[in-house]
Amino acid sequence: LVLFGAGLVTLAPAALPAQFLEGPAVDADRRVTFRIKAPEAQRILVDPLGGALAPEKGPFPLTRGEDGVWTATIGPARPGFHYYAFVIDGVKVNDPSSEVFFGWGRWTSGLEVPDPAFELRSPADLPRGVVSERRYRSRLTGRERRTMIYAPPGYDSGGERYPVLYLQHGAGESELAWSQQGKLGLILDLLLAAKKVVPCLVVMENDYASAEGSKERSPWAEDPQNVFERVLLEEVVPAIDREYRTVAGREHRALAGLSMGGYQALTIGLRHPEVFAAVAAMSCGARKSPETLLQPLLADPASSRGRFRLLWIGCGRQDGLFEKSEALHGALEKAGIPHVWHPGEGTHEWGTWREHLRDLAPRLFR
Amino acid sequence: LVLFGAGLVTLAPAALPAQFLEGPAVDADRRVTFRIKAPEAQRILVDPLGGALAPEKGPFPLTRGEDGVWTATIGPARPGFHYYAFVIDGVKVNDPSSEVFFGWGRWTSGLEVPDPAFELRSPADLPRGVVSERRYRSRLTGRERRTMIYAPPGYDSGGERYPVLYLQHGAGESELAWSQQGKLGLILDLLLAAKKVVPCLVVMENDYASAEGSKERSPWAEDPQNVFERVLLEEVVPAIDREYRTVAGREHRALAGLSMGGYQALTIGLRHPEVFAAVAAMSCGARKSPETLLQPLLADPASSRGRFRLLWIGCGRQDGLFEKSEALHGALEKAGIPHVWHPGEGTHEWGTWREHLRDLAPRLFR
Repeated sequence: LVLFGAGLVTLAPAALPAQFLEGPAVDADRRVTFRIKAPEAQRILVDPLGGALAPEKGPFPLTRGEDGVWTATIGPARPGFHYYAFVIDGVKVNDPSSEVFFGWGRWTSGLEVPDPAFELRSPADLPRGVVSERRYRSRLTGRERRTMIYAPPGYDSGGERYPVLYLQHGAGESELAWSQQGKLGLILDLLLAAKKVVPCLVVMENDYASAEGSKERSPWAEDPQNVFERVLLEEVVPAIDREYRTVAGREHRALAGLSMGGYQALTIGLRHPEVFAAVAAMSCGARKSPETLLQPLLADPASSRGRFRLLWIGCGRQDGLFEKSEALHGALEKAGIPHVWHPGEGTHEWGTWREHLRDLAPRLFR
Repeated sequence: LVLFGAGLVTLAPAALPAQFLEGPAVDADRRVTFRIKAPEAQRILVDPLGGALAPEKGPFPLTRGEDGVWTATIGPARPGFHYYAFVIDGVKVNDPSSEVFFGWGRWTSGLEVPDPAFELRSPADLPRGVVSERRYRSRLTGRERRTMIYAPPGYDSGGERYPVLYLQHGAGESELAWSQQGKLGLILDLLLAAKKVVPCLVVMENDYASAEGSKERSPWAEDPQNVFERVLLEEVVPAIDREYRTVAGREHRALAGLSMGGYQALTIGLRHPEVFAAVAAMSCGARKSPETLLQPLLADPASSRGRFRLLWIGCGRQDGLFEKSEALHGALEKAGIPHVWHPGEGTHEWGTWREHLRDLAPRLFR
């Protein structure tokens, strides 16, 4: 906190940092210029953390200027959202001038490269939904947890009941990821204004849940300390049906997720058709084979055919996991189980999952 | 995002960073141990950013261990919330292992030192309110803005109407500060459960608002490009009364703020008794004299006496701004204008403002 004339810290108002962070500059050719003042540092790199900030893999060195300001211009970057980190004398840290997002298991710098297919600036008169945070003490984990809930425009003023999409994030991320990195609110508000989706609530819960007393925070359902499935089915779903104006019942619930969250959607959703009638996996990241993941369906394909109203599998072609998703699609096709296969363009990044949401959401609750 | 077996990045699940950040260790004597791995760095300091992390002012050097891990133990720290930064070879950065908070005009590391007067862990059965984010396009600033809104337990399921506290943050912070650094939700939920407060909505709007096209983001009402007062009165208050179940009207509205936000509360609130019947300034940070700030009241003390249902001035005695708040109190007392003067213990930090909220909230809307 900056004090004025307080004796502790005195800072002229003109020196006040901008309230809205500047971050790296992105030019019309999608080249990105990073910049940091560090007169005493020996070596600074920018690490794209596996993202598509440039055709090359990186990390990329910054060059020290006479004024102690280090810069690097890289690219062209793929449109969309990218995490990145500075590595200052060997220490991986945030860009102090950037917005931060919970990814990679910690708060991490991120930037937007304008995407011609998705305008981040909302039209002035767009009716906006609201994202709220619901805190609760989980009996199963013994910890305070937080659920983020998107409610469409009109939820607060009306008396209508809504179906619910349960939507999971990826490894190292959190319950904030879909609303922050994913721009879920804006995407759904735009689809709603265009009358392309059935209005619904979206419940975003943290993927990580370990039994009380256990130290490891594994997200994998087969690990004994993992209680995410129970947290979701015994704590979250009943609480949402109790506290929000939902239409309870499987026909009005969908479970979806990206990467590790896609694994969770398949693992939990396919085992619980009594809870969810729609299941979607985006860029599914799993340690199991397609056959194991789809076992609840493949065990008896004939009886599986009508079980779900929607099965959705999608992945970007530039994603290292593309073949795994394609194999899920192939196994379903071979078994004659109806599903949507959405092989889009994109890497294992948020630009792709925003597009996945724009494809998936209009298909839900029909 | 961490991929498993994706070819891009392979990371064993055991190496997954903890989803819940560890941050510095705090011992029973309130001594804080900082730790960062940086084998190649030349010099690392921890900067308490003016906060009370130790009796000395700092910054404090970390010492390099054989393993390339740097550590420092400082303290005893004052109970409550403290911002801090690492300075690695001259660059001020976040502690990668910390939770971050928007303060000092950027995302900044912060830590909690247990406070015997305020337990951060909520009782298991405490009914919890909900904090939501409302995004809107401001006509006055031409930018997308965000309002954070606390609604008490029961708001969503009931039909009752509520009074509204408009509550401002300090310089360099944002609309997130009261709910994140300030733990406003937990404080009000606890006061509500103890039946000590009138249930109310709390609206937290960003202090910074400049006219469309202007570059500077000054928070000071006297600057020509500043439009915060107009944003609050013309955009925020009417929208809240339209979109939420409020009791409209001055008797059911209060305006409060801390530091720079206290300046704004006095400047805007005292000029607009038709909008707010209660005004509170915590650790007021202003470039103006007490007489200038209080001019709307002091111009004609006799007629001012009944104008507000509550005037509240508070400051911690260890705050560098204490004398300024004491002078506000003195000027009101001299003019015979009834008010609450709350000189508590505390520095210019969130531990103090949490205590201020616990004193102020029970007095509102009576």
